[in-house]
Amino acid sequence: MSQATPDERYHLITRRLQEVLGGDAIKTLIAQGKTPKCYWGTAPTGRPHVGYFVPLTKIADFLRADVEVKILLADIHAFLDNMKAPLDLVGHRTKYYKFVLLAVFESLGIPTSRLTFVEGSSYQLTKEYNLDNYRLCATVTEHDAKKAGAEVVKQVESPLLSGLLYPGLQALDEQYLDVDFQFGGVDQRKIFTFAELYLPRLGYAKRAHLMNAMVPGLAGGKMSSSDPDSKIDFLDPPDAVRRKIKKAFCEEGNIADNGVLSFVEAVLVPISELRLERAASKATSDTGPGGGSGEAEEQRPFVTDGAPAGTVFSISRDEKYGGPMHFSTYNALREAFEKRDVHPKDLKEAVADALVSLLAPIRKRFEESKEWQEVTELAYPSPVAEKKKKKEKVYHPPPPGKGKNANPATTNAAKDTVNAPADGAKVTSGGDSDN
Amino acid sequence: MSQATPDERYHLITRRLQEVLGGDAIKTLIAQGKTPKCYWGTAPTGRPHVGYFVPLTKIADFLRADVEVKILLADIHAFLDNMKAPLDLVGHRTKYYKFVLLAVFESLGIPTSRLTFVEGSSYQLTKEYNLDNYRLCATVTEHDAKKAGAEVVKQVESPLLSGLLYPGLQALDEQYLDVDFQFGGVDQRKIFTFAELYLPRLGYAKRAHLMNAMVPGLAGGKMSSSDPDSKIDFLDPPDAVRRKIKKAFCEEGNIADNGVLSFVEAVLVPISELRLERAASKATSDTGPGGGSGEAEEQRPFVTDGAPAGTVFSISRDEKYGGPMHFSTYNALREAFEKRDVHPKDLKEAVADALVSLLAPIRKRFEESKEWQEVTELAYPSPVAEKKKKKEKVYHPPPPGKGKNANPATTNAAKDTVNAPADGAKVTSGGDSDN
Repeated sequence: MSQATPDERYHLITRRLQEVLGGDAIKTLIAQGKTPKCYWGTAPTGRPHVGYFVPLTKIADFLRADVEVKILLADIHAFLDNMKAPLDLVGHRTKYYKFVLLAVFESLGIPTSRLTFVEGSSYQLTKEYNLDNYRLCATVTEHDAKKAGAEVVKQVESPLLSGLLYPGLQALDEQYLDVDFQFGGVDQRKIFTFAELYLPRLGYAKRAHLMNAMVPGLAGGKMSSSDPDSKIDFLDPPDAVRRKIKKAFCEEGNIADNGVLSFVEAVLVPISELRLERAASKATSDTGPGGGSGEAEEQRPFVTDGAPAGTVFSISRDEKYGGPMHFSTYNALREAFEKRDVHPKDLKEAVADALVSLLAPIRKRFEESKEWQEVTELAYPSPVAEKKKKKEKVYHPPPPGKGKNANPATTNAAKDTVNAPADGAKVTSGGDSDN
Repeated sequence: MSQATPDERYHLITRRLQEVLGGDAIKTLIAQGKTPKCYWGTAPTGRPHVGYFVPLTKIADFLRADVEVKILLADIHAFLDNMKAPLDLVGHRTKYYKFVLLAVFESLGIPTSRLTFVEGSSYQLTKEYNLDNYRLCATVTEHDAKKAGAEVVKQVESPLLSGLLYPGLQALDEQYLDVDFQFGGVDQRKIFTFAELYLPRLGYAKRAHLMNAMVPGLAGGKMSSSDPDSKIDFLDPPDAVRRKIKKAFCEEGNIADNGVLSFVEAVLVPISELRLERAASKATSDTGPGGGSGEAEEQRPFVTDGAPAGTVFSISRDEKYGGPMHFSTYNALREAFEKRDVHPKDLKEAVADALVSLLAPIRKRFEESKEWQEVTELAYPSPVAEKKKKKEKVYHPPPPGKGKNANPATTNAAKDTVNAPADGAKVTSGGDSDN
């Protein structure tokens, strides 16, 4: 992307976002020929699911725009989320997250040379960080800390003190990760504006903030956290993926509350476009190390044979029902669905096909990596240990990857809300179905 | 004191306290011939004044009972109290505190071989401590943290977040200072019971807590923080001491609200008794290194010549008003004052004489120590820099050495409330006159 113009780079960085705060600072950096740096955080609490495609698809844009991306694996926060899980278990999960996230970028054909993983424990327990934490706590009012977490920290009767700390820690992470902007879901807005207000009071620079829209869960329409089918794992085999999508809530003509459609918008169409763009610029390919070379078949847009040029999503359909449909934009698909020109069953099948093809290379990498397999055993030992525990009365804060909006983000340095995991389910304000 | 019986040691440790929580644990340690360890914290924010005699007099009992005493100089907290004062200024103040406190013990003839000073910064920024702080914050509810600080954190409209952290940090200090009990003023009670509740939840031992009664200020009866005469400095010359005590609130017959009487009870009588005890055990003297040897004159009880045996406090009085009065207990003095047998002027003069004699060896040490003098210049640079700043709207938390009760303690690892500084003024709930 180094041959892109500043405007093209800025467009790539900010497209499809719901909101950008401080975009001028990023523009300036790009105009100066500099490499903007950003971070996105997630806490390795549970097990990542395909909802993570939402933020990762956006991060793919950053990487393509030559942004230096740091993924914060907030292991300390994950540990605090459930202190019954010892730190070494969190360590295994941190490794598992790295394997999955890298495999996703590789399966998308995104160069990862500008991507780094940073574990929270590598700096969040240092003398400097902690003195800054104390300084911040002696600067921030209880009220402001509470307000900052209002969107992502579940508002319960007996909130834990940690819920008030997380906004400040997340602000400090921007300084300690030395980034120019932080990326997250729009549910992080108050955390982000809190950081913009308070970092300068400690003498640090105010950072820009890029926000994805919130996306409902793909398979979690019914929002039952006890239903294992409400989440699709990155390693689910094709039949499991198809079964889960088949069960997803996707009402005919209903475009307001439709995780399947949302997944198309937030993940599949962007990936299709990405692939079309890459195909178009094949001659001047900039696929870096780690790019998904040699996976030409998997790198195809979600478009069937014979689709007209410019198609970003196709729905196969029996000739007797009218034959295949091709859409050149997401909006066109949405309108067709609203007018009931597209039947939920056909949409689900197209989405399942696309997701199966997206997951295939990830599964393949898993099957080829003895190390990843071993880490998985250690990170998620046995179904018994993973059994759902009855929630205690006292609220256990923002657990990165849980929170108010189902499996959304977190007040933490970590939030997989970011681009609200499309799987899981933001739709209700109910239980935390993420783990 | 090693020849003392376990009962005698326990009595010495707990006498004159208002409350003891967990005394059995201390009894057990003593019965096993062990050396109990305790800590008392103070934050080197302002400048210590003679109110510090109150906790120090009790600490003298601990030292005499062969307790290992750690004085926590909470420099981090002092820094956080007013971040405009840079850390190196706090460093100088920390040194000044050490000079003063050591000089006090030496002037009292107390061996200091079992006394250590620990700076908060030596461990409060370590990885282990901070992980424990996070663990605690993920265990404690906002509600409990707030409740714990209710007595010592001024309850204002916009409290800072740090006010909620201090109770937890003070609990962790017990673990990290490796003590068996913590000593403080009874205003610390909620902080102490908080520590008893939460330390075990982190897997740490519950500690005992010894509490002094709150004592009103000696010269601060009128509670005007802008009045420099409301505090008596350890280095004040005799005429300043006499002038300030002369101005103190000390109403005839009023024993309820009388800082001068309280100072006699909490400081002068205990020191007199200490000196009488030491004189009695002269043959088997246990004065250790640092003991005030060679200061025989200064080591006399506050008793005039010709007093009957057992006198702990004398009041000189002109023969035409009835001649000198001698009291064998504080209660006897109090009753006499209540019955107006003792005139405030005579009481004040006796107290001023006693205090002048207490401060003389401290001033002498100061005058002999070039290092102390230099540190004083650095710690309290100029009257201009010390000028009272208008308080900001946002409350600056528990400032060790400030707080709700005038210059009391603090939620911090630091509280000079402890044995509420007799100087300053607990009497009102008003301004913070400590700095």
